[in-house]
Amino acid sequence: MNTVIVHAPGSVSNLGSGFDVLGFALNEPFDEFALRRTEQSGITLINESPFELPADPEQNVSGRVLLAVLQKTGIDGGFELTQRKRILPGSGIGSSAASAAGAAVAANALLGNIFSKVELLGLAMEGEVIASGARHADNVAPCIWGGVTLIRSLDPPDIIPIPPADLFVSVVHPQFEVKTADARAVLKRDVPLKSAVQQWGNVGALIAGFYRNDPELIGRSMADVVAEPYRKALIPGFEEVTKAAAAEGALGGGISGSGPSLFQFSKTREVAERVAAAMAHVYRDLGIDYFTYVTTINPEGVRVAGQY
Amino acid sequence: MNTVIVHAPGSVSNLGSGFDVLGFALNEPFDEFALRRTEQSGITLINESPFELPADPEQNVSGRVLLAVLQKTGIDGGFELTQRKRILPGSGIGSSAASAAGAAVAANALLGNIFSKVELLGLAMEGEVIASGARHADNVAPCIWGGVTLIRSLDPPDIIPIPPADLFVSVVHPQFEVKTADARAVLKRDVPLKSAVQQWGNVGALIAGFYRNDPELIGRSMADVVAEPYRKALIPGFEEVTKAAAAEGALGGGISGSGPSLFQFSKTREVAERVAAAMAHVYRDLGIDYFTYVTTINPEGVRVAGQY
Repeated sequence: MNTVIVHAPGSVSNLGSGFDVLGFALNEPFDEFALRRTEQSGITLINESPFELPADPEQNVSGRVLLAVLQKTGIDGGFELTQRKRILPGSGIGSSAASAAGAAVAANALLGNIFSKVELLGLAMEGEVIASGARHADNVAPCIWGGVTLIRSLDPPDIIPIPPADLFVSVVHPQFEVKTADARAVLKRDVPLKSAVQQWGNVGALIAGFYRNDPELIGRSMADVVAEPYRKALIPGFEEVTKAAAAEGALGGGISGSGPSLFQFSKTREVAERVAAAMAHVYRDLGIDYFTYVTTINPEGVRVAGQY
Repeated sequence: MNTVIVHAPGSVSNLGSGFDVLGFALNEPFDEFALRRTEQSGITLINESPFELPADPEQNVSGRVLLAVLQKTGIDGGFELTQRKRILPGSGIGSSAASAAGAAVAANALLGNIFSKVELLGLAMEGEVIASGARHADNVAPCIWGGVTLIRSLDPPDIIPIPPADLFVSVVHPQFEVKTADARAVLKRDVPLKSAVQQWGNVGALIAGFYRNDPELIGRSMADVVAEPYRKALIPGFEEVTKAAAAEGALGGGISGSGPSLFQFSKTREVAERVAAAMAHVYRDLGIDYFTYVTTINPEGVRVAGQY
């Protein structure tokens, strides 16, 4: 065996009230990567995605992770990575995290699972630096662990897996760009204590909701009073999407990451389909192109889908 | 049956990172109240506690709750309440909440359990107004529900019971006063976003820790970066108590309510006894009188202990 194929899921970070700490992995969309060990040293990148990706391993998210693996292990030879990405860069559903975590997990499988999940997180965060300029775990944590993950601390890393509830997820990805720098810039440096207390009351209740598998509790604990009130201004259609989703019976949702994708939870696939259609309708009316997904929470994270 | 006897537990609010939202009930100490229906209208108060209590029902925490019960139900006659309190007023372990919740639950039992827990909470908060000038639920919620409670919202009331973990609790009550007004005044009106995120990461992990019955996770998620750094200055011996408790193997703890009582969690009764002794030692050295308790989390809240 010298080739592994992995599927790396999209993910939602900044889950509701859990700004900067809570995220979850999606069953759809996901990326596929095929990784092969080579006698030749260094990283060879092949792109079979329907969009361009940086060809220089130093500038490519997956490439950077594989370089870190080579450096950390000191093994001979190199890697050839074939990238079949389906998660669109800039969608806000963890495209770079899938590239980073997918490469890390694939390399780990090829090398006989020498890394712990926390080590994989560290390697994947090296890749996230390329995409966002920062070592952040918001999407790589759910992408590696699967399910719902709570980042209690990054230094040292303390990732708490939370049992995913039986929820359906509707995602709409409108085709415009929200710059991460803008999404950061609109946030206040300080939060009123009263709002902060409300937020951590909701975070606590959200975690309880997942443990109890209680969709209503999850729904009413989603409210983000800290980031969403400022960030929604960057996303045309936000209010309309939120209202339309609620009218169709969605439990609650918000901005995925820093957008532009928006997500909503529902109790049944039928409702989630109607919610996705209502979200789509908003952007059709606004004349903005979009993709929608109706999916569930991915419980396992990056998965080795084949090896030969 | 026209008399009920209830036991109303002490409680810890501002549990670790869960400032203003998380609390739990204690098995020790607790108050005893005997409530009797009378033909005579109004409230008669008898005090068999080892300290004075306001004799005017309007100014007495339990009295005010019973007046609210009379007003709400419009029943004929009145109540006679015998108060055998053991939780010292001003201790920071929910003395007024025990008076309020004890009276509410006792009246409810006498009247055939006509009130829901949320209604009992509303009645008990009427009593808390006497003690603190505000309708707050920080201690009455755990006192009524028992176990660990999360106050997700007060308007409308949304109390989430969290499964109590198998923990032992050491409490030291040093004999000095912390004025609630001072404890409020030292807090900042605004919190840096970074600290707020750290706090709600810890709150989420603390809730997960209780669901997982994971003492280590509970311990490392207790850190309060928002209130404790300011309030500890109001409590002589705080740093020494915290260090001494950790040295004896305590998992973590903090200020109970706004003090002066301090609490620590431990995994075994043996460790909790050593922790309490170490806490006591600090105050003995400081020449400050104190009480200590070694107890567990009370799972049921105010309990009807007898009726005749």
